[in-house]
Amino acid sequence: MKPGAKLIRHYLQFKDLRAEEYAHLFERVAIIKRRFKNYERYQPLADRTLAMIFEKASTRTRVSFEAGMYQMGGSVVHLTTGDSQLGRAEPIEDSARVISRMVDIVMIRTFEQTKIERFAAHSRVPVINGLTNEFHPCQILADLFTFIEAHGMNRRGIVDVDCLKGRVVAWVGDGNNMANTWLQAAEILGFTVHVSTPSGYEVNAEVAGITNSDCYKVFNNPVDACRGADLVTTDVWTSMGYEAENDARRKAFADWCVDAEMMNVAKPDALFMHCLPAHRGEEVTAEVIDGPQSVVWDEAENRMHVQKALMEYLLLGRIG
Amino acid sequence: MKPGAKLIRHYLQFKDLRAEEYAHLFERVAIIKRRFKNYERYQPLADRTLAMIFEKASTRTRVSFEAGMYQMGGSVVHLTTGDSQLGRAEPIEDSARVISRMVDIVMIRTFEQTKIERFAAHSRVPVINGLTNEFHPCQILADLFTFIEAHGMNRRGIVDVDCLKGRVVAWVGDGNNMANTWLQAAEILGFTVHVSTPSGYEVNAEVAGITNSDCYKVFNNPVDACRGADLVTTDVWTSMGYEAENDARRKAFADWCVDAEMMNVAKPDALFMHCLPAHRGEEVTAEVIDGPQSVVWDEAENRMHVQKALMEYLLLGRIG
Amino acid sequence: MKPGAKLIRHYLQFKDLRAEEYAHLFERVAIIKRRFKNYERYQPLADRTLAMIFEKASTRTRVSFEAGMYQMGGSVVHLTTGDSQLGRAEPIEDSARVISRMVDIVMIRTFEQTKIERFAAHSRVPVINGLTNEFHPCQILADLFTFIEAHGMNRRGIVDVDCLKGRVVAWVGDGNNMANTWLQAAEILGFTVHVSTPSGYEVNAEVAGITNSDCYKVFNNPVDACRGADLVTTDVWTSMGYEAENDARRKAFADWCVDAEMMNVAKPDALFMHCLPAHRGEEVTAEVIDGPQSVVWDEAENRMHVQKALMEYLLLGRIG
Repeated sequence: MKPGAKLIRHYLQFKDLRAEEYAHLFERVAIIKRRFKNYERYQPLADRTLAMIFEKASTRTRVSFEAGMYQMGGSVVHLTTGDSQLGRAEPIEDSARVISRMVDIVMIRTFEQTKIERFAAHSRVPVINGLTNEFHPCQILADLFTFIEAHGMNRRGIVDVDCLKGRVVAWVGDGNNMANTWLQAAEILGFTVHVSTPSGYEVNAEVAGITNSDCYKVFNNPVDACRGADLVTTDVWTSMGYEAENDARRKAFADWCVDAEMMNVAKPDALFMHCLPAHRGEEVTAEVIDGPQSVVWDEAENRMHVQKALMEYLLLGRIG
Repeated sequence: MKPGAKLIRHYLQFKDLRAEEYAHLFERVAIIKRRFKNYERYQPLADRTLAMIFEKASTRTRVSFEAGMYQMGGSVVHLTTGDSQLGRAEPIEDSARVISRMVDIVMIRTFEQTKIERFAAHSRVPVINGLTNEFHPCQILADLFTFIEAHGMNRRGIVDVDCLKGRVVAWVGDGNNMANTWLQAAEILGFTVHVSTPSGYEVNAEVAGITNSDCYKVFNNPVDACRGADLVTTDVWTSMGYEAENDARRKAFADWCVDAEMMNVAKPDALFMHCLPAHRGEEVTAEVIDGPQSVVWDEAENRMHVQKALMEYLLLGRIG
Repeated sequence: MKPGAKLIRHYLQFKDLRAEEYAHLFERVAIIKRRFKNYERYQPLADRTLAMIFEKASTRTRVSFEAGMYQMGGSVVHLTTGDSQLGRAEPIEDSARVISRMVDIVMIRTFEQTKIERFAAHSRVPVINGLTNEFHPCQILADLFTFIEAHGMNRRGIVDVDCLKGRVVAWVGDGNNMANTWLQAAEILGFTVHVSTPSGYEVNAEVAGITNSDCYKVFNNPVDACRGADLVTTDVWTSMGYEAENDARRKAFADWCVDAEMMNVAKPDALFMHCLPAHRGEEVTAEVIDGPQSVVWDEAENRMHVQKALMEYLLLGRIG
């Protein structure tokens, strides 16, 4: 930590930051992305090192964090399970003590949320959740910024975070870590999630960690969930780690494929998002994901920019 | 891409650049190598990130691209099959769209040439072939520069690319990706390849993608191929991916071992090259590879320098 | 190497440096660590690249070398067995020739000491031992500096290496690479090692490579070894590569657990060190490793700082 800094801030779930901090963060994302697009060098994290610990494979999280850190002037140590499995050779707490003596910030992709919480409790430096079984806050950060780019940014690039207020996000599919994180975001930023999952794959407000049940509505029929939505979004039927359930899931999720019918009942300017990789013909039709309402490639790129702003905030605090 | 740049240039096979571009490139290699040897810092790719995607293992390609990019001031994201197998989790086209949003240039080592072509077709940034089943253009670039260092560079380091014109390169062994690339280079730069392969391992002009059959001659006897050659070069009998054929290949290739007899019929100042790793006693004798005509260690180092110049050219265009 | 430099210095075992060189090195470590703690940028190795070759997995060695090199301004290429197994695809000597043409310094973690010696003999750049079956000099460097921080550093951070003279280090447990390296350090820096190992796991002065048998004393009872010691230190019962002997070792080592009794017979201000990962309840009790005399987290962090100073010395020579 920089001398004088008092508190270590972690980002383990979406509710670890407050609404006003998100407003600041999205302003920074807009500035940081614009600099990248204009080839303006901006290296506030020169001399800082990010350790990335991956217990699940990843391309998008990997490239977005690593390239993002380089763009901010910093360095990256990439640890995979082959190098180091949290809790195997030594207690997680010991790994946290050692690694956090050597680097400035840590990103962890693992299974149980409790693992990342135990790591963070013994870390001297900020820890970021790069996906757990329960949450995926960096992806929702990217999705929200992608929405703001469409609806809350004027020509001069000034961000209006209030554009999220009162909006409807339709979540179609698995009640997974993405769904949980959408609920937390809705509670903090003031929008509503229409959730439609197959029976047996419901979201659980307790796991999601929300206190206000007004922030989401459950629909049995995914078409109903999409009606009037500003954003329709989904995820693969079988997330990493659930491959054994693949056959059962293919049957259960058959009607939870985002298609033209669902997009047609959403608002005319509704966006489609997907955290990728996508399986066309399963959770989304090619027509939708490759169609004009889809912003999935911007969404993917924005992972990198929101994470750069997040690292900047956790390491340097409020800028400007 | 830099603002103002119009076209994305890829380097998927040797014929992707023209003769005059090679002349420029070799001049740049000479300058870039000299700066490295003199510890003169030269970082034109600061702020740029290279993604390397390896679907086949590699030491030389890995170290030469990665260290080379660092020397040019840039950063590297190294993806292996463990992290990401092209076409498995998502279509190659989607990977290309996502990765090329986050980095500035991509190097791919894979199997089929069609894979790298599909990636390049959907990439926003330049793509370099780091070896496919069909081609290995970066290695031939290194070999040509190593030849120029011996025969086409004056004391002040000025490069004379015309020194390649009319020369004879003897290719002894497998009609593989290296052989194919030598044929393309011969057609573009005006020299002749004497090819001698065992029966069943011939080069295929169609696969090699050449139109002028005058650029190579086929010899049944490898000694005949070497007669009068300016350069004798070979490769392992069994390239990566063909290990199942190992026994059959050992029998078929027994007479295709570059030895003193072959070097003796070549020109007195003929060079010996090998892209490494080498198996002494198989495709080359220890006497030859460790002898005075062998330039294999310079050749290995030059991989790094030619690739630095290539990345500089693809990203920044003509310098000076 | 920098122009003008004459000799390549390697660090393959502790005795590769002389006592006066260690005095200089520890002064540099103190300066380099202070700069890190104060966020003072110091990048003497900008433009230099470290290749790390790992044939055994590692977290601590990996992170400490990689983050350390970044802090010094340099870059790192990380090669694992998956990428390149020394001596498999090509002779070690060829790998050394090729890799040392492309990078500025090499760290190797491997099995036999002879492997690293063969690599070094054909390398154009310095080679550092990051752990072999026989030696672990970087760890002992860190341990010695951690001792100096406690006993040989005044308020202004001036280092007094003589504080090591005449001290007693108790080594409790396996007569392994750590024990061998402690003996070399004792011989060079003038202290004594009290070694207590189970029967069958003794240190071997010949393997350790020491000539003066006065630098260590053997004790059957580990409590006796700790009596009057300034430092008590141990290692896991089963080091990497010896997992097959696990059951036999658990029986043999049962009495070689560093506990309160051992610490109580040591000097009142004795330190406890462990190279980690630690198995509480096996080679050390939780009471000791988590107690007030334990300096294991400083020791872990110091790996990074001593290695930074070591790389600086091998690449740039004496500073100041």
